[in-house]
This record gives sequence, C-alpha cells and structure tokens, in this order.
Amino acid sequence: MSALEAALAEAAGEVERTLDRLLRLPSEPHTRLFEAMRYATLGGGKRLRPFLVLESSGLFAVATSCALRVAAAVECVHCYSLVHDDLPAMDDDDLRRGQPTTHRAFDDATAILAGDGLLTLAFEILGDVETHADPAVRCGLVRALGRAAGAHGMVGGQMLDIIAEGQTFDIGEITRLQRLKTGELFAFSCIAGAILGKADDHSRHALQAYAHDMGLAFQIADDLLDVEGHEAEVGKSVRKDGTAGKATFVSILGVERAHAQARILVDQAIAHLDSFGARAENLRRVARFVVDRRA
Amino acid sequence: MSALEAALAEAAGEVERTLDRLLRLPSEPHTRLFEAMRYATLGGGKRLRPFLVLESSGLFAVATSCALRVAAAVECVHCYSLVHDDLPAMDDDDLRRGQPTTHRAFDDATAILAGDGLLTLAFEILGDVETHADPAVRCGLVRALGRAAGAHGMVGGQMLDIIAEGQTFDIGEITRLQRLKTGELFAFSCIAGAILGKADDHSRHALQAYAHDMGLAFQIADDLLDVEGHEAEVGKSVRKDGTAGKATFVSILGVERAHAQARILVDQAIAHLDSFGARAENLRRVARFVVDRRA
Repeated sequence: MSALEAALAEAAGEVERTLDRLLRLPSEPHTRLFEAMRYATLGGGKRLRPFLVLESSGLFAVATSCALRVAAAVECVHCYSLVHDDLPAMDDDDLRRGQPTTHRAFDDATAILAGDGLLTLAFEILGDVETHADPAVRCGLVRALGRAAGAHGMVGGQMLDIIAEGQTFDIGEITRLQRLKTGELFAFSCIAGAILGKADDHSRHALQAYAHDMGLAFQIADDLLDVEGHEAEVGKSVRKDGTAGKATFVSILGVERAHAQARILVDQAIAHLDSFGARAENLRRVARFVVDRRA
Repeated sequence: MSALEAALAEAAGEVERTLDRLLRLPSEPHTRLFEAMRYATLGGGKRLRPFLVLESSGLFAVATSCALRVAAAVECVHCYSLVHDDLPAMDDDDLRRGQPTTHRAFDDATAILAGDGLLTLAFEILGDVETHADPAVRCGLVRALGRAAGAHGMVGGQMLDIIAEGQTFDIGEITRLQRLKTGELFAFSCIAGAILGKADDHSRHALQAYAHDMGLAFQIADDLLDVEGHEAEVGKSVRKDGTAGKATFVSILGVERAHAQARILVDQAIAHLDSFGARAENLRRVARFVVDRRA
C-alpha cells in the first residue's frame, strides 16, 4: 500500500466515524429517511473531498475535530449530488460504487428527500459552534460552500451537463462545465482548511489554483476511464458518455492529447503548492493519484 | 382591503424585489437553471413565511434590509420544497398557484436542480454579511434554518407524509407530521426576528409557541380547504387527500371538530403574543387569517 493509500484509508475511517455520528438514526418509529441518507453516505467512496479538507487543514494547524466536521459536510454535499444525479429524471443510473443507487434501494421519492436532507445537514453542520469557535469562520465556510455547491457552482454545472447532451459543446464550454460541476466543490474542499485556519489570501489563492488544475485533471481522467475502464473496476456504468453523444475531453482532444493535458494540469497543480513545503506532500500525491487511478 | 391584506401586499412587494435581485439572471449563454429558479419563486404566493419574518423582526427593531434577506431565504426554502413536492415521483402535481408546476413548465431534471439551487441559495444568503453584521447572528440563523428545513424538520415531515399514504396515522402521528412538514419552517420564520434582534429566550419561546399553534391551525385549515374548497379559488388540485386514502385532521376529527380545533389553536397562538403588545397586531391578524382564508 502506498503512503497516499494509507493516508486516504486512515482519513476515510475517521470521516466514516464522523458521518456515522452525524447521521445517527433517531429514536423514532419511522427512520426510513435517515436510513436512506446513511445508505447514500456511509460505507463507500474514496472520500477524496474530505481528504482534501483534512490535508488543507493540516497546513494551518487546524483542530482535527473541526476539520472532520467540515470534511463530513463536504461529503454530505457530494453524496446528495450523486443521489440526485442518479435519479431516473437525471442520469438514470442503477449502480453506484458497485451497489444499487439510493432510489433503486429505496424509491425515487425517498431518494429525492434523502438528497435534500443531506444538503441541508451540511449547512447545519457548518453553522454549529462545534465546527469552529469563531462564528466569522463558520459564516465564511457557509458562504463559500453555498457558492461552490449552488446555481453558480455545482448545480449550475449539473444543469450545463444536461444542456450539453443536446448541443455540441466546445473545449471552452466543457471546461467551464467541469469547473462548475466538480471543480468548485474540489476547490471548496481545498480552501476549507485555509478558512478554518484563518490563512492569508496568498495561501487561499494557491490552494484554489491547485484545486482547479487538479479538479480539471480529475475530470479528464474520468472521461478517459469511461473510454478505457471496465465496469467492475470502476463500480459504475461506463461507456455512457459515448452513447449519449455528449462532448467530452476525450471526444474533443483524443485519448493521447487528453492524457497529455491531464499530466500538464497535474504538474501545474503541484507547482501551486511550492510555498507550503513538505506539509503539502499528500496534496501533491493526490494530484498524481487522480490521473493514475483506475477507478 | 383589510389592514392585514394591505400589510401582506406591501411586504410581498418588498420581498419580490429582494428575490428578484438575489435571483438575477447571470450574463451567461445558458440561463435555464436561473429561469427555472425564478419561475419557481417569483410572481406568486401569499409570501406568508416572509411576512412572519418581517413582522417578528419588527418586534425587535431589526433593520429592514436584513429582515428582507432572511425573508427571501425562507421563501427560497419554501419554494424549493414545493418544486420537489410537485415532482412526478412525489405528489405529481401539474398545477401550483394557478400555473403549471416547474417540472411541467421546464422538465423534471431542471426542476430537481432548481430546487437544489434554491435551497443552497438560502444558506448562502444567510451566511453573507449583508444579512447581519454579527456573524454569531448569521450562524444562529443558519443553524436554526438547517434544523427547521432538514431531516429533523421539513424534509422529515415530507417523508412522513409519504409513509402516511400506506398506513393509518392517528391524530398524534399526523400532528407530528404537520409540525415537521410545515410547522418547523413557520416557527423559523417567527423566531428569525428574535435571532436577528438578539432577543431574550422568553421572547424567542413565545414566538416559537405562537408559531406552532398557528402552524397547526394552518394545516387543519388546509385540510378543510381540501374538503370544502374549489380548485379555481385554491389554485391547486383539490380533493387529493381523500383519493389518496390518507389520514387528515378532517378524516379523523370530522369537519365540525376540525373547525373548532383550529379556532382553539388560533386563540392559543394569539395568547402567546401578549407580552409584545400592539407591535404584534399583524401577527395576531395572521393567526386569524390562516383559518379564515379561502385559499
């Protein structure tokens, strides 16, 4: 196991325990909603965004308990977006992380509400004093997550993703699509530590730049996996982009140039971390991981 | 026009202008998501929850600009819940406020995302310094709205509403259902002013108690309208509860007792406002309005 895999696994374990506590089943007769929220969130996933929260927090000596709560909040947002994205009206997927999607395991209505509940919980977590003693820091997190996850960010990107199915997007448009759809939440995950640690603007901008380059590389790698990957390894339905006739980085650049572009972005991402020295080593490893991964 | 109707209309106008600014169409090529969010939010509705925010704020000399932002945030949450509730997988409604529902005017996927965007925007609004200079106040709003709107509140109530279709709920269970599904957001609307105004616990509890009694009266009145109302007047599909075979306050209590119970609750609600004197007159009028209304 590599150093990064070990660090990811340890972080995933801590995040899992935090999410388990935050999603504790209430002592009520009807628990279906919480069961669906737990199903959508616990037990699977690389926990990459939480890892970024923890690692960026580590650059600024942030208390682990605070960082874990923000990590959990980000994962709630990520998981809610997957639940809604998998719905029949959206991507209509039956499989996610090798398991039935939430609406297949429960039903469509429960999945819609589970997603809504997870998104709301994320903000409740951030607003709570346990996340940081300073309310100004908490408001900074709320505002930044709101911007990253909302109509000017992730949700806006998901809308563009739908629009892209009926049109031919050029490289500029799909880059913007991906920046909103996945890049914004990656960026929030990376700057969360800077917000928690009350870091200066330079640090925040460096992490933001790292996140955007790394996030774009992640998306190109995702498109390459779709073309080159196997369903069992990846854990979700592949070959979907091609059948939908949607422009991807691979369809526009071709496989070779897509690989090359991803490597360039990874190098750029790593360069942004120079000022942080050795403390940022795991973030450098993550950047390399997103293009080397097979799932 | 009554004094309350005049006050409601004036407040609705100010809230509309605030929402219009917060939902300004971005200067981008693809604006469908924001068009759907605007469609779901602007141009209709009684704006009852925003009115409660403004009136409760008025008890504590809160700046109108701050109160309007919180009022807008609450309306965003309310409207997102209607958009998701109307979806085919949920209540499957074609009509809302006399107009096609958002998923009928646009499409299911856009409606799901528009709801997600509105919910996220509500928290972004609350976290922003324009809502209140004191970040502790803003965090208090975020935490309270998160609790009221989430799985322990409104979304939890919507889940119970779905579960209720397959079971026979007794009066205790449907009371709890309504308290979560609609009461919690009403309560937040009423205590928002106390949070903004940094009011003492007594004031906050009095408003909370007012809100719960008034909110329950509202729901009983809603059930009565379903049995007694006309579609054109009400603006949405009626007679739905009966066909779904779901327990309601009317099916359990009967029309006469339901009317009586609603009146008792209104009297209780008004009694909770005694300590506020004349400043709370509109809140008293609202309590009477929710049982006298025809839509």
